[in-house]
Amino acid sequence: MGRRIYLEDVPLEEAWARWLRALEEAGLDQPFPGERVPLDQALGRVTAEPIWARLSVPPYPAAAMDGFAVRARDTVGATETQPRVLPVHPADAEGGACYVDTGDPLPPWADAVVPVEQVQFDAEAPERATRITLYQPIAPWANVRPIAEDIAAGELVLPANHRLRPVDLGVIAACGYVEVSVRRQPRVAILPTGTELISPEQAAARGVRPGEIIEFNSLVLAAQVQEWGGLPTRFPIVPDDLERLMEATQAAARTHDLVLINAGSSAGSEDFTARVVSTLGTLLVHGVAVRPGHPVILGILHVDGRPVPVIGVPGFPVSAALTGEIFVEPLLARWLGRPPRRRPRLSAVLTRKLLSPLGDEEWVRVTVGRVGERYVAAPLPRGAGVLSSLVRADGILRIPRFVEGYDQGQVVPVELYTSGEEIEGTILAIGSHDMALDLMAQFLAERYPGRRLQSANAGSLGGLIALRRGECHLAGSHLLDPESGEYNLPYIRRYLAGMPVVVITLAHREQGLMIAPGNPKGIRDLRDLARPDVRFVNRQRGAGTRILLDYYLQRLGIDPGSIQGYEREELTHLAVAAAVAGGRADAGLGIRAAAVTMGLDFIPLTLERYDLVIPLAFYEDPWFQPVLELLHDARFRAAVAALPGYEVTAMGREVTRITGSA
Amino acid sequence: MGRRIYLEDVPLEEAWARWLRALEEAGLDQPFPGERVPLDQALGRVTAEPIWARLSVPPYPAAAMDGFAVRARDTVGATETQPRVLPVHPADAEGGACYVDTGDPLPPWADAVVPVEQVQFDAEAPERATRITLYQPIAPWANVRPIAEDIAAGELVLPANHRLRPVDLGVIAACGYVEVSVRRQPRVAILPTGTELISPEQAAARGVRPGEIIEFNSLVLAAQVQEWGGLPTRFPIVPDDLERLMEATQAAARTHDLVLINAGSSAGSEDFTARVVSTLGTLLVHGVAVRPGHPVILGILHVDGRPVPVIGVPGFPVSAALTGEIFVEPLLARWLGRPPRRRPRLSAVLTRKLLSPLGDEEWVRVTVGRVGERYVAAPLPRGAGVLSSLVRADGILRIPRFVEGYDQGQVVPVELYTSGEEIEGTILAIGSHDMALDLMAQFLAERYPGRRLQSANAGSLGGLIALRRGECHLAGSHLLDPESGEYNLPYIRRYLAGMPVVVITLAHREQGLMIAPGNPKGIRDLRDLARPDVRFVNRQRGAGTRILLDYYLQRLGIDPGSIQGYEREELTHLAVAAAVAGGRADAGLGIRAAAVTMGLDFIPLTLERYDLVIPLAFYEDPWFQPVLELLHDARFRAAVAALPGYEVTAMGREVTRITGSA
Repeated sequence: MGRRIYLEDVPLEEAWARWLRALEEAGLDQPFPGERVPLDQALGRVTAEPIWARLSVPPYPAAAMDGFAVRARDTVGATETQPRVLPVHPADAEGGACYVDTGDPLPPWADAVVPVEQVQFDAEAPERATRITLYQPIAPWANVRPIAEDIAAGELVLPANHRLRPVDLGVIAACGYVEVSVRRQPRVAILPTGTELISPEQAAARGVRPGEIIEFNSLVLAAQVQEWGGLPTRFPIVPDDLERLMEATQAAARTHDLVLINAGSSAGSEDFTARVVSTLGTLLVHGVAVRPGHPVILGILHVDGRPVPVIGVPGFPVSAALTGEIFVEPLLARWLGRPPRRRPRLSAVLTRKLLSPLGDEEWVRVTVGRVGERYVAAPLPRGAGVLSSLVRADGILRIPRFVEGYDQGQVVPVELYTSGEEIEGTILAIGSHDMALDLMAQFLAERYPGRRLQSANAGSLGGLIALRRGECHLAGSHLLDPESGEYNLPYIRRYLAGMPVVVITLAHREQGLMIAPGNPKGIRDLRDLARPDVRFVNRQRGAGTRILLDYYLQRLGIDPGSIQGYEREELTHLAVAAAVAGGRADAGLGIRAAAVTMGLDFIPLTLERYDLVIPLAFYEDPWFQPVLELLHDARFRAAVAALPGYEVTAMGREVTRITGSA
Repeated sequence: MGRRIYLEDVPLEEAWARWLRALEEAGLDQPFPGERVPLDQALGRVTAEPIWARLSVPPYPAAAMDGFAVRARDTVGATETQPRVLPVHPADAEGGACYVDTGDPLPPWADAVVPVEQVQFDAEAPERATRITLYQPIAPWANVRPIAEDIAAGELVLPANHRLRPVDLGVIAACGYVEVSVRRQPRVAILPTGTELISPEQAAARGVRPGEIIEFNSLVLAAQVQEWGGLPTRFPIVPDDLERLMEATQAAARTHDLVLINAGSSAGSEDFTARVVSTLGTLLVHGVAVRPGHPVILGILHVDGRPVPVIGVPGFPVSAALTGEIFVEPLLARWLGRPPRRRPRLSAVLTRKLLSPLGDEEWVRVTVGRVGERYVAAPLPRGAGVLSSLVRADGILRIPRFVEGYDQGQVVPVELYTSGEEIEGTILAIGSHDMALDLMAQFLAERYPGRRLQSANAGSLGGLIALRRGECHLAGSHLLDPESGEYNLPYIRRYLAGMPVVVITLAHREQGLMIAPGNPKGIRDLRDLARPDVRFVNRQRGAGTRILLDYYLQRLGIDPGSIQGYEREELTHLAVAAAVAGGRADAGLGIRAAAVTMGLDFIPLTLERYDLVIPLAFYEDPWFQPVLELLHDARFRAAVAALPGYEVTAMGREVTRITGSA
């Protein structure tokens, strides 16, 4: 009976240490030698040798101002009443005065420059003067740039292992060079492998067929390598074929310093990477105790007698990108003579409980914002396949191997991707997902450079709870109160009792049943959901749409237990629509805009009000005004009105303002 | 009688506002339109439009693990004692189980994946199994990636005005694109002008002749433009000729979005930039109340009916680079739809008093390090010509227009160039200048990536005073006590009374007279300095070399007043050597290495001891150990021993350790 070959579970530090030892033995742990490049191509490159000045700057004493070069001793005793008059000579005639522009060499006999503003002269322009009158003496060496004021020949200008900035290039040129020796850029081969992969170009040309996956990891890995100072090569996709993968790997190793094989790094039937590595060299690590990213392979290939490090990069996109950060970046840094990147850290309050499996270190992506006086970290979806979570991430929270997780409200350390400046500019929305909020994020980024709206979907109720806890700047809410038929206010009174808030309408939205195009199941209204041949897809508990559904089911006397798929939860309107579009469900409740986006038919049910709930303190803060300005902006209104099923007449209307404690 | 035309004195904010108003009127203040580029060339570019997902990711429900796709309801009731056996079918046959690899689409009839580790199967490899045995039930949708888990078609993936990172490229490709619309890169023309300018290539080929200046500002400005997302063009050098500058400016304006003319921006006889700007367009600002950088011109050219902004960039290299930061960067940011860069700020203790002229805002370059619990900012040379000060700067201290300066010890705000990480890795040395310390900086950067040694030259006594104030990690000192003939210790007892320090020898150095090659003045010893035909160049008060000179003069009974140039002070050995090499002085006192570097003759006087004085707390700190390790490193010793006149037998020897209070 067959059993799966399990991967190793090597702790991160040990995996790195094991690989590094092997790199050391193979002589692959040292900074790369230098190559000479012209200065105008050297920006961002790393010096391979120290740079000692070849020339002094300035190479001669020079005038620091426009004026007249003189001997200071000739000016001694000059006063307003007893001025001194000096004849003007050319520079090579000793004594008197000589006109000099800023930067001109001082004549050899002179030791000071009288600025043109401090003398009178007998011509229209100072350079045509034949004599000058001074009303005060000048000190020796005044307004003279001494020789080597900037740099003395022979001085250390820049050490090795220095990343060249614009001013560095200027100084290197100033002290006599036209080229600079910089570390050779590591060449990194990226081999995508997998029979199911198609290129983005193929996908754009003819669509994605079932079972196919667009190969984009190589794009991410190549851009990472480029950002970290390496030279990436993206190889064509290799199908799952041991022989062909072996050949491609050998070819890559011959011309590159590092080979990344993506993916086939696990232990499945089509996972050839481990066999390729152990056949062509030494397999050092197969499986690292980190997630996402567990099935990582570290090894060294030996091709034509030359050792070349290799990484088997996992296929899930988040795993692939994090493997780049964890293993590729520090190796490239080492080869360039630079320290590995250390991301700035920040302490933030966690917005929800996180459980993490023991044994693996977990890297959780988080959105970070400053809410009032504290930083808040909202965890993003944790799946290894959810690359958008890495796109939206402001940082990583690392949960150590033997920690079971963190509590909501706990202060945790976050390693930041985003600059502090961007975080300070972030408006954090937690609550119900809405497409007009997506538009608001887009308008904000366009109109107010540097400002961002980050949304975390937690449902309408989740948003109010987050507001209560001080974890966001605003919550989007569309909660129907079954008793009163009123939107939001009863919930706000219950969940935000005593908290000063302003409630402003964003829009009204048409809610209804999203069904497959042409309505193949002949669904007419909510009653059809109980039919045994109809598969439903629901929203999560606490979502306004879920509450709306339950309200109508109760009114119609439909038992939720009779609805097939009632327990299947999705987090957004678009995810529900996608489930219907993909044929996995026959109906879902959601907004018309999502149905139209996914090409679905739509049976309207009601027009609901979607409000923004904003703590009074933020509402009155100038920093927050861009959000309020957009609510009264004609272009933004028009863009929202153009979303199918959206109605904007009430946009920006203040529903209520609760100022004091209840 | 002629009088200089004075420049304006426009405050920074007003200058920018005046220019911006004109840019607005000319329609030049808006972000640039987009151009489509392939994704693999889009890293670092800025999105010109929001990106809405064209495809869902994944586009179908997919297996999240290697295993068997099943209907969850077929597994209900399975236990260790009553396992469930399912036949294995191909994907298109409904029911039973079907082998799937991670990422494979789920067969339409299935709703869960049983991981391969959780079943037994009747073959060597799971994909050849004909039936599987389950010992536990599986929940519906377990191990299934729902459709659109990552991205739903129609969703906002990225807003406009977003700078693309590696993961962004992946997500854009994943949701169906091969290209992205990014803002066109602003084209910036850089026109160097000045009859005295020669290119770095000319300088390297035939040396720099008196009166010539190597043109390197265009290299710095071009690299700045590149770093800020623009496309620079460096034009050939234009001599000071109004007609030719006019032609070059017109040509540049026809094909560029912004023209930088460097220099000729002042009001001297050869300064044509203002005339070019007012002839070809509108001169808006001529002179900004900031230093370095005062003679800045802002204007708008009108060439062929097209408005093109122009900046007259001052010629002094620090002024030129700061003009780039102050005026070019925010304009490029605006055109790219990005906020202007805001540098991180930090509060630091100023190591010495700074006086600043009223009326101009002054940008003082500072080195920053953390000494104990506080950050320390040591001002660097302030001359507008000292580009090396900008190279060494960790940040800028801005002294506002109507502030007269800051006191030593005052806490001041610094805008940082350097990352916090680099500052944390900085060892700050204040004291006597020494070439072995330069070598130490170089070795430190090479051996310990991320560690830096920053030296500020304040003379030996200045170093001890800085140590006393807690402003540096170590002080280099070679102070001869005239009474005892002993080095350093009497001074340490006097200036650092009660402070626990360790004194370690770095090297012995040969001190002597540096004289022109061939000794044209026939100088034999210190007595010749008093000759009327001998011009001397001295070191600053507090320098060990100055104290050494005074010690010998006193012993020999020579009156300092009889020495021509005794009052002319330079800050380093190399600057003194450069003064002699440049023919501005006939002799100076200094170390042999400096004389040899500058090609001078040398008359030895004595062998002196150069020590490092290190507070005990740093000496014992692991963070500091790299310095101590280098003192016992064979390669470092050899490199120092190779410096002319250096003797390293005592390197690393502990001279004394003062542990308690005196």
